[in-house]
Amino acid sequence: MADTLNRLETVIKERRIADPALSYVAKLTHKGRAKIAQKLGEEAVETVIAAVADDHAGVISESADLLFHWAVLLADMDIPMAEVFAELDRREGVSGLTEKASRSAD
Amino acid sequence: MADTLNRLETVIKERRIADPALSYVAKLTHKGRAKIAQKLGEEAVETVIAAVADDHAGVISESADLLFHWAVLLADMDIPMAEVFAELDRREGVSGLTEKASRSAD
Amino acid sequence: MADTLNRLETVIKERRIADPALSYVAKLTHKGRAKIAQKLGEEAVETVIAAVADDHAGVISESADLLFHWAVLLADMDIPMAEVFAELDRREGVSGLTEKASRSAD
Amino acid sequence: MADTLNRLETVIKERRIADPALSYVAKLTHKGRAKIAQKLGEEAVETVIAAVADDHAGVISESADLLFHWAVLLADMDIPMAEVFAELDRREGVSGLTEKASRSAD
Repeated sequence: MADTLNRLETVIKERRIADPALSYVAKLTHKGRAKIAQKLGEEAVETVIAAVADDHAGVISESADLLFHWAVLLADMDIPMAEVFAELDRREGVSGLTEKASRSAD
Repeated sequence: MADTLNRLETVIKERRIADPALSYVAKLTHKGRAKIAQKLGEEAVETVIAAVADDHAGVISESADLLFHWAVLLADMDIPMAEVFAELDRREGVSGLTEKASRSAD
Repeated sequence: MADTLNRLETVIKERRIADPALSYVAKLTHKGRAKIAQKLGEEAVETVIAAVADDHAGVISESADLLFHWAVLLADMDIPMAEVFAELDRREGVSGLTEKASRSAD
Repeated sequence: MADTLNRLETVIKERRIADPALSYVAKLTHKGRAKIAQKLGEEAVETVIAAVADDHAGVISESADLLFHWAVLLADMDIPMAEVFAELDRREGVSGLTEKASRSAD
């Protein structure tokens, strides 16, 4: 899966500066940050709905859309994916094997 | 980043069956699918807000929360992350270097 | 504003059973509950983004879309708007003039 | 229902300037626009989930939360509810009895 995300990050970086008439990434990027964020929100809503409906194929498909638009958003903010993964690693290190029970699940 | 996600997937699988009093993942899983999906939706909303506010640290932090709860949701549906990455790979193969211009960015 | 919402509720009830080729409400209703709910979620995301961007005209426009799709959803569940307003009234009665400070704002 | 929303709008306006230690509205308002918008987004997600689960009581309860936080957001932007209702009326006038079939339901 490293390959997939690494490739996605690289491809999106290339496409951002492509012709908006030929590239969805360029077209969406051209519309601006708010539109990219909106797409992320919409794909999250679709993932939520598929999950509640116990639709496995739907969750896989909408999750792919969610990750894709998340990657477009990170690129637009010039945030390397690695920084998000470092944050996930850092939390894991903090919580360790005995995860903080205090974290609210409400 | 493969390591991070692989480890996250493994850790979540272990914690799902841990004591809900000691593990956030177990506690959230115990609340059921709708609650997990709700958390995913909420983290997406927070990511959207941080992005529109151009808050880099916020997007990194909320993205980590988003990926974490997405992983908990996949585990609850018994969907391996690899299936989502395979879907992303498949789309990339379909669209190739000349991405479909027809895909709407509206 | 009573007139507006009363009229909206009546109009939506009429259009649900209209020709999907002529009516957006009928077309959306035909797509099913999940699609109506998805639309509500999307309009909420757009309202959130407009609010954070301090876009007054945007919030007015997206709020109208949000209320519209909310009304379509209520109709699809056969829930009279009056029941939601009764719930709001009930809470107001409970909290009274000295609103519960205990309610979390986190 | 006019009474309910009129009263809600008035009450929220009063509470915004109340002691944040005593009023949820004041406390939330104090946290700022992004937090209010986040709450709106979260309540929308909960409404979506309740709707897909065909949970009538849940949709009524979450809808009340959604309208409440929407009203707090409007107040924070100094937008009278009447402006949103005027926008709904305007659209109704535009679409008339023969609603635009061209509006996409995708």
